[in-house]
Amino acid sequence: MRYHKIPDETVRRLPIYLRGLMGSAGQGLDHISSQSLADFVGVNSWQIRKDFSYFGDFGTPGVGYNIDKLAKGIKKILRLDVIRKAALVGVGDLGSALLGYPGFKIYGLDIVAAFDVDPDKVGSMVSGIEIEDAARIDTLRQREISLAIVAVPRTAAQLTVDKLAAAGVRGILNFAPCKVSAPKRVKVITLDIAMELARLPYYIPRIEQMSEL
Amino acid sequence: MRYHKIPDETVRRLPIYLRGLMGSAGQGLDHISSQSLADFVGVNSWQIRKDFSYFGDFGTPGVGYNIDKLAKGIKKILRLDVIRKAALVGVGDLGSALLGYPGFKIYGLDIVAAFDVDPDKVGSMVSGIEIEDAARIDTLRQREISLAIVAVPRTAAQLTVDKLAAAGVRGILNFAPCKVSAPKRVKVITLDIAMELARLPYYIPRIEQMSEL
Repeated sequence: MRYHKIPDETVRRLPIYLRGLMGSAGQGLDHISSQSLADFVGVNSWQIRKDFSYFGDFGTPGVGYNIDKLAKGIKKILRLDVIRKAALVGVGDLGSALLGYPGFKIYGLDIVAAFDVDPDKVGSMVSGIEIEDAARIDTLRQREISLAIVAVPRTAAQLTVDKLAAAGVRGILNFAPCKVSAPKRVKVITLDIAMELARLPYYIPRIEQMSEL
Repeated sequence: MRYHKIPDETVRRLPIYLRGLMGSAGQGLDHISSQSLADFVGVNSWQIRKDFSYFGDFGTPGVGYNIDKLAKGIKKILRLDVIRKAALVGVGDLGSALLGYPGFKIYGLDIVAAFDVDPDKVGSMVSGIEIEDAARIDTLRQREISLAIVAVPRTAAQLTVDKLAAAGVRGILNFAPCKVSAPKRVKVITLDIAMELARLPYYIPRIEQMSEL
């Protein structure tokens, strides 16, 4: 499949569509309309059609999208058609929660290593994974682990990203609520949880106005 | 300030701009160009100008945006110009991490209550907050708590959302990796952490192609 550069916003929505498609397949469907998919994932159907236009059309008029074909297509575009190994750095409350989180597997993501600087934690097991000394981050390249999750305190985030980049990691999901810099070859996504909560109040007065109608 | 309906994608970026502005103010700046702000938050400058066009122009040609004025304007639009009280449901690893998370305060968000169904947890303190029995969720309306974070297992998510909606909560940040339904007056944002990690592999081959140049 050939495709052109896809906007980041579309890439952001593709996993949402994928989850919606897998949910629909789980309900026994084999085709889905753009409207039904839109309802399932909570976006507009025109947005879905626009997003899919970047990589070719999987739909048939009057029939909708073939769920299996579309899911495979999205997985291929997202490079999720192979198992991806990931490491986690920082096994505090958040890190422990992530190690036990069941949601990664549906995307073919496998957390296979965990690191911490605390000697009391090193060697212990969390959700079946042995915690290693953070000094061992430099073994990631030879272990072919190219994704990492950073769940360390803000003050340790940049140093951790530097170490991961030096160890050949190419994609980092950063939970520290701060900007970190990395070489161009490393894609960093910062997930600031507070920021997600901060979006909610905007919708509250609008809803109150609606209820007055 | 009057403004028209702002697209959800723009609302999603406003807290990112706000964090960037507060970071810039912390560095002693009082004005910032759209390009500098774009570099700081990692989006295109045309996107920033387009987003700001929805609620009026805070910029001056050749000088840039007044940081203080712009930050206040964004806070007002997001209704973050007052302290917002929030409750957390589900004090497992993730919930505990969220109770100790320092990032909420910069947006004026204050987690003041936490609930769990586990009798062993009820009454104990986590990060200065006493854990209450989940049966007490119905006290949220009288305590004027309108935001909630759901960090319960997937199987308990819908019931928790139902209880929160019945207790007058208007905005919910859901961490359970599943679709939950709520009355129209309740805005639900689902944050599927696995989905964020699933966006990363897309960028890796593109980066590899770049390094071959």
